[in-house]
Amino acid sequence: MSHHNQRHMHLGAFLFQVGHHVAAWRYPETDAHGILTHTFYENFAQLAERGKFDMIFLADTLAVVDRGQTGIKHTVSVRPEPLTLLAYLSGVTKHIGLAATVSTTYNEPYNLAREFSTLDHLSGGRAAWNVVTSGRDEEAHNFSLAAHPGHEERYERAREFVDIANALWDSWEDDAIIGDKQSEQFADPDKVHELHHRGQAFSVRGPLNLPRSPQGRPVIIQAGASETGRRLAAETAEVVFTAWQTLEEAQRFYREVKSLAVANGRPPEDIKIMPGIYAVIGTTEEEARAKEAALQDQVLPAVGLSMLSASLNVDLTGYPLDGPLPDLPELASINGGKSRFQLVSEMAKREGLTIRQLIYRVTGARGHRTIAGTPSQIADQLEEWFTQGACDGFNIMPPTLPGGLEEFVEHVIPELQRRGLFRTAYTGTTLREHLGLVRPVSQFAKGTSTV
Amino acid sequence: MSHHNQRHMHLGAFLFQVGHHVAAWRYPETDAHGILTHTFYENFAQLAERGKFDMIFLADTLAVVDRGQTGIKHTVSVRPEPLTLLAYLSGVTKHIGLAATVSTTYNEPYNLAREFSTLDHLSGGRAAWNVVTSGRDEEAHNFSLAAHPGHEERYERAREFVDIANALWDSWEDDAIIGDKQSEQFADPDKVHELHHRGQAFSVRGPLNLPRSPQGRPVIIQAGASETGRRLAAETAEVVFTAWQTLEEAQRFYREVKSLAVANGRPPEDIKIMPGIYAVIGTTEEEARAKEAALQDQVLPAVGLSMLSASLNVDLTGYPLDGPLPDLPELASINGGKSRFQLVSEMAKREGLTIRQLIYRVTGARGHRTIAGTPSQIADQLEEWFTQGACDGFNIMPPTLPGGLEEFVEHVIPELQRRGLFRTAYTGTTLREHLGLVRPVSQFAKGTSTV
Repeated sequence: MSHHNQRHMHLGAFLFQVGHHVAAWRYPETDAHGILTHTFYENFAQLAERGKFDMIFLADTLAVVDRGQTGIKHTVSVRPEPLTLLAYLSGVTKHIGLAATVSTTYNEPYNLAREFSTLDHLSGGRAAWNVVTSGRDEEAHNFSLAAHPGHEERYERAREFVDIANALWDSWEDDAIIGDKQSEQFADPDKVHELHHRGQAFSVRGPLNLPRSPQGRPVIIQAGASETGRRLAAETAEVVFTAWQTLEEAQRFYREVKSLAVANGRPPEDIKIMPGIYAVIGTTEEEARAKEAALQDQVLPAVGLSMLSASLNVDLTGYPLDGPLPDLPELASINGGKSRFQLVSEMAKREGLTIRQLIYRVTGARGHRTIAGTPSQIADQLEEWFTQGACDGFNIMPPTLPGGLEEFVEHVIPELQRRGLFRTAYTGTTLREHLGLVRPVSQFAKGTSTV
Repeated sequence: MSHHNQRHMHLGAFLFQVGHHVAAWRYPETDAHGILTHTFYENFAQLAERGKFDMIFLADTLAVVDRGQTGIKHTVSVRPEPLTLLAYLSGVTKHIGLAATVSTTYNEPYNLAREFSTLDHLSGGRAAWNVVTSGRDEEAHNFSLAAHPGHEERYERAREFVDIANALWDSWEDDAIIGDKQSEQFADPDKVHELHHRGQAFSVRGPLNLPRSPQGRPVIIQAGASETGRRLAAETAEVVFTAWQTLEEAQRFYREVKSLAVANGRPPEDIKIMPGIYAVIGTTEEEARAKEAALQDQVLPAVGLSMLSASLNVDLTGYPLDGPLPDLPELASINGGKSRFQLVSEMAKREGLTIRQLIYRVTGARGHRTIAGTPSQIADQLEEWFTQGACDGFNIMPPTLPGGLEEFVEHVIPELQRRGLFRTAYTGTTLREHLGLVRPVSQFAKGTSTV
């Protein structure tokens, strides 16, 4: 196989608690108290950077979700604020991208644009924003709302929010700062632009009080797979995180989103598609499967049932574990977590899974694809999806942390590198350069369009 | 003078652009582009930590203020977002406190409480929040409001906001996390509390999705000196930043705020009062005065007039520079920056200053006290205020950065240490320990009161 000019896959290191498996904190090798210490996060970030990952990815939830009374008692209801955590990590890393999930439903565009711009400046161009609209009533209740706003309303606000953020990041043209002590001019007022945005959800005058950042704009990530989510992604996203179980559905999604992007006047390579992968690694396939089963044995039945119930928006208490799912609500009635609902319900139908089998799927991979095997078997699977038009890379979800990431960095990454599928060194300095994304020109430069 | 058990002063290092003087960026030794680089901030923080400062302090403005068309062109209209910057700095420092100004008018309590809690966890207990209500129409226009909300409305919201933040920080009792792999319990639900807060401005259910942080609650700072501001400070603040020109007014303020605190059932030592000091340091007094004048010579007349006009909420264009101020608006009509208005107008009256002389006072010290002299003269002045019941310490505002802070650390700090007035090493690990403040017990512990 020739390694010259070969296309490289992109990899995200998805940081979640002490591992993605719901029982990871009870696994013998994890440190349940690690989630309160800076050294845990520092180790994770430096390990991912050693593995030459494109970026660290952080999800978010703006509440403690304690449905069925199992949340606080048996699971890790701890969520450091992603931007604050990534700003800390920017000081202890040099190359790796830093992707934070922040909600458009419960924030103000001026604050968000400043925070990401500050992170992009301080990190030398490594910031990315995963745009979400949030999904739970518990979150609404922490923000003075009686209920979570509707799907369409949230996506309209999100679209307007992203447009404003982009305009704020563009509001100082790249060469606006003069800083000439002799001419007495700090900046050129003709290159610093007010927005005077007046929309449905927001009025924002601008300009931002920060000059344009190294990446021009932080990288925009999107994860919603609903139809509205896909449309928003095709219009605005540069990276799409997604969850698929089979090669065929991943290929279909890949084709569809790339076509939607093209229909929006964007080259297909300007949008990178990265499914989540829950990889359980062993020196033999048997060892990997035994490890997967050992983690699963730690799941308390009530916790599993509660997670599956939340994914499907239905209370499954009392149904036989070895029987099928009861009738589910209509997709249209789901407000928040639409794509998770669709994924899990379709998986159940396609594979004819029992409630117990479904619990098994959501407590670890949370609906994402599981691969349990040797480093070489895992590399085979990743290579297949990557070369068969199903994706541009993967978001890696280690079952336990830091162990699961350590194994991936030490055994799977070298295998991908040997096959010429992944970088052996960082060649750029910004996340855009790692991802092969262009640096956008300011919309205010040389008479291009404004908001 | 005995140094045993002597009371130590507390010092803040006030980080502002490349120096507090409005023309600092044009001073030969400053780097106008430094404000865009992480090394500039890292050097500042490590220098302040070398000087054993209690904390770094960051002010904030949520807009570019460009009145009179001099802002963008001639001054530094760049403001990194304070929390993001301090989170970065927490990774490159070990001991120093990290105080961020964040507005209660343009944020949500759940977001703010998470951000500060995350910073407190990551920094090992070094976070402080300077509570402000913001002060300008330009800020309102970036947050979908037609005008800046009224003084009373903002302070009522601020009071409610601080109560909610405190309750969120208290919502996990200190021993709520069990983390016992055997008993399968991650946390004790009886020690994690919902707030069910329903107030005028906010409804917040809680709990926070972060356990109690090392300091219990971040240190609360307040700077408003209006009557409402003082009341809020006496009720909620643990540090008060303030600006006074004379020993007598500083002593009066000190007595008043301490008495108000006592009237609120708080011991007077639970609230530390720290005036701002703009120190210009020379090897001789003449050198210091020449340095002060050299900086002043860099101020463009239009910039000075614009700054003074903004402080006094009146357009001074056209008035003779060597004449007195015209009639000023009533104090009651000032909405935002009330204490700055009062300070500058009283200074003008007391000292019979011309417009030109007043410009001189606001372009450097911005209304705070200026001391130009040798390290020993500066130490004399600080010692006098500190020992004569005018303050518990100072917030140091270097005219230029990093030079002005470097001089303070190398020459004034050793002089204060020789006199037994300042620590020679950090003895605690948290900012509360540096400041001698107690760690608050959670309001939810053992049946104490709730919000």
